[in-house]
Amino acid sequence: MTTAYSQLRATFTRLSRFSHLSSIAGWDMQTMMPAEGSKARSEALAELSVLQHQILTAAQVGEWLQQARQEDLNDLEQANLREMHRQYQHAALLPESLVEAKSLAGARCEHAWRRQRPANDWEGFADNLREVVKLSRQEATLRAEAAGISRYDSLLDLYEPGMTAVKLDEIFGDLKQWLPSLLQQVVARQQSQHFAQPEGPFAIDQQKALGLKVMKRLGFNFDAGRLDISAHPFCGGVPQDVRITTRYNEQEFITAMMGVVHETGHARYEQNLPKEWLGQPVANARSMGIHESQSLLFEMQLGCSDVFLQSIYPLVIEQFGLRPGLEQANFIKLNQRVQPGLIRVDADEVSYPAHIILRYEIEQALIEGEIEVEDIPALWNSKMQQYLGLDTVGNYRDGCMQDIHWTDGGFGYFPTYTLGAMYAAQLFQTANKAVPTLQEDITRGDLTALFQWLNQNIWQHGSRFSTDQLIANATGETLNTGYFRRHLESRYGELA
Amino acid sequence: MTTAYSQLRATFTRLSRFSHLSSIAGWDMQTMMPAEGSKARSEALAELSVLQHQILTAAQVGEWLQQARQEDLNDLEQANLREMHRQYQHAALLPESLVEAKSLAGARCEHAWRRQRPANDWEGFADNLREVVKLSRQEATLRAEAAGISRYDSLLDLYEPGMTAVKLDEIFGDLKQWLPSLLQQVVARQQSQHFAQPEGPFAIDQQKALGLKVMKRLGFNFDAGRLDISAHPFCGGVPQDVRITTRYNEQEFITAMMGVVHETGHARYEQNLPKEWLGQPVANARSMGIHESQSLLFEMQLGCSDVFLQSIYPLVIEQFGLRPGLEQANFIKLNQRVQPGLIRVDADEVSYPAHIILRYEIEQALIEGEIEVEDIPALWNSKMQQYLGLDTVGNYRDGCMQDIHWTDGGFGYFPTYTLGAMYAAQLFQTANKAVPTLQEDITRGDLTALFQWLNQNIWQHGSRFSTDQLIANATGETLNTGYFRRHLESRYGELA
Repeated sequence: MTTAYSQLRATFTRLSRFSHLSSIAGWDMQTMMPAEGSKARSEALAELSVLQHQILTAAQVGEWLQQARQEDLNDLEQANLREMHRQYQHAALLPESLVEAKSLAGARCEHAWRRQRPANDWEGFADNLREVVKLSRQEATLRAEAAGISRYDSLLDLYEPGMTAVKLDEIFGDLKQWLPSLLQQVVARQQSQHFAQPEGPFAIDQQKALGLKVMKRLGFNFDAGRLDISAHPFCGGVPQDVRITTRYNEQEFITAMMGVVHETGHARYEQNLPKEWLGQPVANARSMGIHESQSLLFEMQLGCSDVFLQSIYPLVIEQFGLRPGLEQANFIKLNQRVQPGLIRVDADEVSYPAHIILRYEIEQALIEGEIEVEDIPALWNSKMQQYLGLDTVGNYRDGCMQDIHWTDGGFGYFPTYTLGAMYAAQLFQTANKAVPTLQEDITRGDLTALFQWLNQNIWQHGSRFSTDQLIANATGETLNTGYFRRHLESRYGELA
Repeated sequence: MTTAYSQLRATFTRLSRFSHLSSIAGWDMQTMMPAEGSKARSEALAELSVLQHQILTAAQVGEWLQQARQEDLNDLEQANLREMHRQYQHAALLPESLVEAKSLAGARCEHAWRRQRPANDWEGFADNLREVVKLSRQEATLRAEAAGISRYDSLLDLYEPGMTAVKLDEIFGDLKQWLPSLLQQVVARQQSQHFAQPEGPFAIDQQKALGLKVMKRLGFNFDAGRLDISAHPFCGGVPQDVRITTRYNEQEFITAMMGVVHETGHARYEQNLPKEWLGQPVANARSMGIHESQSLLFEMQLGCSDVFLQSIYPLVIEQFGLRPGLEQANFIKLNQRVQPGLIRVDADEVSYPAHIILRYEIEQALIEGEIEVEDIPALWNSKMQQYLGLDTVGNYRDGCMQDIHWTDGGFGYFPTYTLGAMYAAQLFQTANKAVPTLQEDITRGDLTALFQWLNQNIWQHGSRFSTDQLIANATGETLNTGYFRRHLESRYGELA
């Protein structure tokens, strides 16, 4: 019998095949495509995206979703149906005219931003951003009304289902209690330490070879993925063929290497999503926050730990030889250096949350209509002073114009970075309890037990559970900022 | 006013965007994709191909094609409409059940062939091939009835519009008159010559660097294309972003280098198709024969000429140094060596046509129902004896099982290789008359005038004219085998 659910299954399989092509063509655009291919590629991807939107929001899909609720489905099918419904609603809620207007305004704002940022042209940028904010507010209003939640919460839900401003206020409020003083202490202590800069150059093919060895150590499946180069590192492709990228600088290899560690965390999650469900929404990664928890568990919890750095140190020396600045102790210290700065993407893990809280507070007020675009610079400055003690007056390019997220209306995304950092701490400490030999394992370069635990508790579940349920199943409780605090205090605190 | 023609224009623009994604994902599959991506990629491409077929064969497209005939269209629009109609008919003529059956039988036959060929398993192969032939005959019958032509001609028309078995019999009949004796003479004369094998190894990155320099010399636009590696060299991508490939062997660099020259010929045709019409059928390359004429003009007419080889010789020495066997005279001789052999893809330009004529005669009889699959080996053997004096009895793997074309029903394709070789000779001799300084230009490494002539006469026209018209416009007459004979005699004949 052809059930509504089986029709939905077939429809989402079809959609995932189109997503596959879109992912690969998107990856190609960032890594391989020569300049003159750009226009035709954008048009081809836009055409596919219109098609995907049409298939997903067809009236029949809405009807099948209603009918399938009455059908006899097992737990996984129920979860799959819930995720289908989520996707359908997110797509079907907005009138096509708004989708188009948002896309145009976003493209215009981002395009101009690429030259306005280096030119420090806030006035020019603000003109375009106003339009983006106006349309994002319209979007948020429609989503909020349909879901009976606040406007900003409705955008948060796109990236981190179930997350709300009330919860974030509590979580970030807690961080604001103890993080600034911890940061001050660490900075003060590190000021008396000496950090040597390892002597370059580090040839790019050597750096790539090191990256591949580290990926291998981290269990990356090279029969189902690759490492390439792009201007902005990312993890793309499809679960059967995960494409990660990094970028190289001949003078310095640690950034590229840790970038590879970070993206490998994303990649292993993708490579280990439930195989038998691939193509169905329930097999997708749970949320942006959980995705980031995997990359940050790899990069920060594991990657910047003394034991892991010790374990890969021989690989580094094998590749570059023992040069001045490449002594083991200095190599470890460089990976744990704390230096508050203006730029989020360059931030260490202690100052990073301040960058996020600042953006969260501004974007939330912006979407709820409590502030306007012209209020952003002053707020940015006062919060940078308050959280990091840094002055950005008049420096828009390294201040409120530094990120790409707002240019095309990605409001609600920023919090997932710090949620990910906190989930990562909670998961890693739980894994250490579950696997008492883990620290010794890591020292020996044996990560099997860690990956088994992650697979068991996170990877294999895809989107079967809500984020809260997934974290509670894995760690015995929902998000608890105490883990993140313990992590930072134990790595950077007085007794560290 | 929305005309039927403008509706068609929009539909074909949309189709070309999907083709873009299919081309890039197909290129990626051959060059970048790791093994485990294969199944998901094939499914994604098949899904897209079903979609493209549905869009192209929609009843409305048929109606618009009828209506557009009554509309006021200029010459180019008329030509575009003609090509639209051609695509529509080719796609719409076959019932979906036959398309699917052909695709399945072809995939099965090709898949099994990959192990049957090395195992020399003719019986096993013949079982699958019989099904492919049966379905190809059904296809040919439907196409032939609709077009009022013979069955084999209806398949030829897919690759070389307007070509017929009657014309081919005449053309190939002429070749059979003079080519075998020319071949014998050349072989006899070359037997007394000494060909030294240049001393390897030739590092792959050095070979790639040489290939890129040669591509640059040949005018390849690197802002609109790339060079990569694949098991079987090809030219793919889209006109705005042409992807060519080659493969490397550390012991020998000439094959990879001349492969690059060949694919660059295809690439420059694609890169210079009429820009303002890209996305419309009239902007497509004219035919497989004309496409091959460009790659063979680059590889054989230009690439293997003394003057061109002299002009790139300094690049070769710059890359590899003057090694034993890399003396200029020997380098030129190696590129003009004639050695009849069993394998088509390894054949020189003098023996190549024999491989094609043999395949043409067999596939034509097969499609017309004059012979059956079990008759192939005996025919193959007798024709190999007759045309090349070689014995293949019992050697199926290097005989009738060597090519991939028949495995998935690509009957009618083979003749385009030799048509391309003959068009290439005709075009190149005409260009030399039109540009009296051409030989000196080539010696100096200046190919501007040649490329201007090709652009003027071939590239910029896309599919505006029929093949006959295009060749007649360019050279003053339709295909004339005399040019090809003069070329071979002047390069390889007694007086050469």
